[in-house]
Amino acid sequence: MSWGKFYGIGVGPGDPELLTLKAKRILEQTELLFVPKSRLEKRSVALSIVGQAIDKQWRTVDLLMPMIDDEKLLNQHWREAAQAIMQHLSKGIDGAFITLGDPTLYSTFTYLLKQLKELAPEIKVEIVPGISAVNAISATLQQPLAEGEENLIIIPALQDQETLAGLTEQFDNIVLMKAGRQIDKICAVLEDRGQDKQACLVSRCGFEDVSVHHDVFALTGQKLDYLSTVIIKKKGGDSQ
Amino acid sequence: MSWGKFYGIGVGPGDPELLTLKAKRILEQTELLFVPKSRLEKRSVALSIVGQAIDKQWRTVDLLMPMIDDEKLLNQHWREAAQAIMQHLSKGIDGAFITLGDPTLYSTFTYLLKQLKELAPEIKVEIVPGISAVNAISATLQQPLAEGEENLIIIPALQDQETLAGLTEQFDNIVLMKAGRQIDKICAVLEDRGQDKQACLVSRCGFEDVSVHHDVFALTGQKLDYLSTVIIKKKGGDSQ
Repeated sequence: MSWGKFYGIGVGPGDPELLTLKAKRILEQTELLFVPKSRLEKRSVALSIVGQAIDKQWRTVDLLMPMIDDEKLLNQHWREAAQAIMQHLSKGIDGAFITLGDPTLYSTFTYLLKQLKELAPEIKVEIVPGISAVNAISATLQQPLAEGEENLIIIPALQDQETLAGLTEQFDNIVLMKAGRQIDKICAVLEDRGQDKQACLVSRCGFEDVSVHHDVFALTGQKLDYLSTVIIKKKGGDSQ
Repeated sequence: MSWGKFYGIGVGPGDPELLTLKAKRILEQTELLFVPKSRLEKRSVALSIVGQAIDKQWRTVDLLMPMIDDEKLLNQHWREAAQAIMQHLSKGIDGAFITLGDPTLYSTFTYLLKQLKELAPEIKVEIVPGISAVNAISATLQQPLAEGEENLIIIPALQDQETLAGLTEQFDNIVLMKAGRQIDKICAVLEDRGQDKQACLVSRCGFEDVSVHHDVFALTGQKLDYLSTVIIKKKGGDSQ
């Protein structure tokens, strides 16, 4: 049996122009797209980005990848998605899985790939890196993400205030993802221990309705977009 | 006076196809490129990447940005570079600074931007994010950089063995840049405390002569490319 090739393609943070030339070429050559969805009735943001960048009608296969905590059930969804992909690739047709940002950084793609490699290790895989939201945010802020000998930590979701307090002492640059609901906690830490620190919040980076807040203290008590990112840096260490 | 616009453009890790559509469009529209060089007689890797992706003759301005430790002298070089840029933009011509990887992640671009904003805060700046070597490496390894609730730290150059030992206990995913000369130190830590950890080394990622080593222990005692990157992760947490 000759399998089709499986591509994992990062489509970037939202702006269709942040697709790479390689992603564009492969998507133009591929007839079949695998589209992850947290709910099947939802419109895919990744597909909308790709559709704005490339004028083409693909055959799309929706893959249900719900945002749930039940690990066993999640594994089952990933396995079913991997089986659906195998079924298509087994016909010798290439297919591309599209994902927001970068396929290797907090994407369901890596879970799916694990399942696929277990089920069919002989399938040829190519991953095309994408611009992650983290890099897009620092470009929007016109601030370094990290420079020189500085270190950098990326945290997908903060657990507790004590942890953050420790990290602000240990790291020069901190990226806190999904920080929209934690702004009060973050401000408390900065007030307490962050005399030499400054923080910015960015929501919906890469989209037209991006919002940037250079003064996080003005945001305390507000209900913010869950998918907001906060970047904490040394004071005076930015390019503003 | 009407200034030209200043672009900071990430050209990605080496493969010309990893330029973004936006970088390509802006570079096609811009006549003037600012090219950072550690030594003026050296060929610029960023310029070679751009030249492979886009068929065009630009007017180039070399900016000397030597790799030295003397902070005062470095500042002077960045200031001179900023002044050279201002001189060109003051004629109303747009210009683009090109840099390997992403302009906000360990790039001389952010130092230069700081100087430029001090000297001429009225200049309009646009930063175009690029694929960083870190994302390209994980795509090459077909491994997640980080997934789920895992954190990720990026360390530009390791200081001492004790620090690394602590970091391997505290964090899920560690990216050690410029690790080529430190492989013995890294292996010692992994042997000592990293029973549940695995490490890969990648050199020259994004170029045709990329080399990937899944067994870092086989590399002890070897003289490796200074610009190698080591990624340390939990065992079994990858997609291999």
